Amino acid sequence: MPKIEIDAVPKFKGVGYPPPFDVPCSDRIRQRLGDAGGISDFGVNLTRLPPGNWSSQRHWHSHEDEFVFVLEGEVTLIEDDGETVLRAGDCAAFPKNTGNGHHMINRSETTAVYIEVGSRCPEDLTMCSDIDMKSANCDGRFVHKDGMPYAWPGSR
Amino acid sequence: MPKIEIDAVPKFKGVGYPPPFDVPCSDRIRQRLGDAGGISDFGVNLTRLPPGNWSSQRHWHSHEDEFVFVLEGEVTLIEDDGETVLRAGDCAAFPKNTGNGHHMINRSETTAVYIEVGSRCPEDLTMCSDIDMKSANCDGRFVHKDGMPYAWPGSR
Repeated sequence: MPKIEIDAVPKFKGVGYPPPFDVPCSDRIRQRLGDAGGISDFGVNLTRLPPGNWSSQRHWHSHEDEFVFVLEGEVTLIEDDGETVLRAGDCAAFPKNTGNGHHMINRSETTAVYIEVGSRCPEDLTMCSDIDMKSANCDGRFVHKDGMPYAWPGSR
Repeated sequence: MPKIEIDAVPKFKGVGYPPPFDVPCSDRIRQRLGDAGGISDFGVNLTRLPPGNWSSQRHWHSHEDEFVFVLEGEVTLIEDDGETVLRAGDCAAFPKNTGNGHHMINRSETTAVYIEVGSRCPEDLTMCSDIDMKSANCDGRFVHKDGMPYAWPGSR
C-alpha cells in the first residue's frame, strides 16, 4: 500500500551542523516521508518547528529547487529582501542558484508544521548566507567556505 | 519574495484526456504552485477534487515518482491491491515503474484538497491501467497503447 503511516516514520531531532551553528535548530523534528514511501527523485519532509527554532541556517542551493507548504502554525521567512510571515495554507518556492539565502524562524508561541520538498542533485552545493559554512552533496560535510573542515570530532 | 500568492495562481479545470476518458475528472481544479514559484525540477500542484470526481485515470509512470498529501476532506485511493481511504493529514507515495496504477476518487460529499508532487523526466511514459491509453512526456499526446492517435480533433 502506498499510504505512508506517518506515525511509524522515524523522527530526526536537530541538525548535523558543527556547533554552535546547530543550536538554533536543536529542537527541529523532521520525518522523511518520501524516503519512507520509497521515492527517490525528490525528498519530502514533514517538519515540526517548536517556538524559537530555526528551520536551518540561512542558505541557498546551487542545483536544487525547494518548496515549502505550511500546514499548522506560522513561521517567519527570512531572505535578503526582508521578512515574510507564512501561515497555515501558505507556501513558498526557492529556485536553485539565486544566491538569495532563506530560512524560517518560528517566532510564534506554538509549534509550526510544514512540508518541505527538494530535488536531489549530486552536484548541489549548499551555501550559507550569514555564516562561514557550506556543504556539498558529494560528501555531505559542513565545511568552511574555503573548504577547510571544522575542528569538531562529530562534524561530517 | 518567494511566497506564492495562491489566489493569483491560474486554475485549470478538467483534464486533457480524449473523451469519454475526461468525463470523470471534469470538475477537478488544479493550480500549478511550483511553476508559479519559478521552480522546475519537480511539479507541485494544489488540487481540489469535488465529490464524485477522479484525480485522473488510473495510471503509473515509467520514470517519475509521485507523492500526495491530503489537506482537506478525504479521497479513496485505488490501486491493484484494493482501496485505501486517505484523510486530511494522510499521504502516499508512488514510486516510478511499479506497474501498479493508482488514482483517487472522491466518494465523500465535500470537496477534497490535496498537494501532489511529481518529478519531471523527459523519458517518462504514463501508462493507464484500466483503459487503452498512454502518454509520453516527449510529446504530451494521449494515444492508444499501440501508439495510434485518438480520432478526436482536440486530442493532443
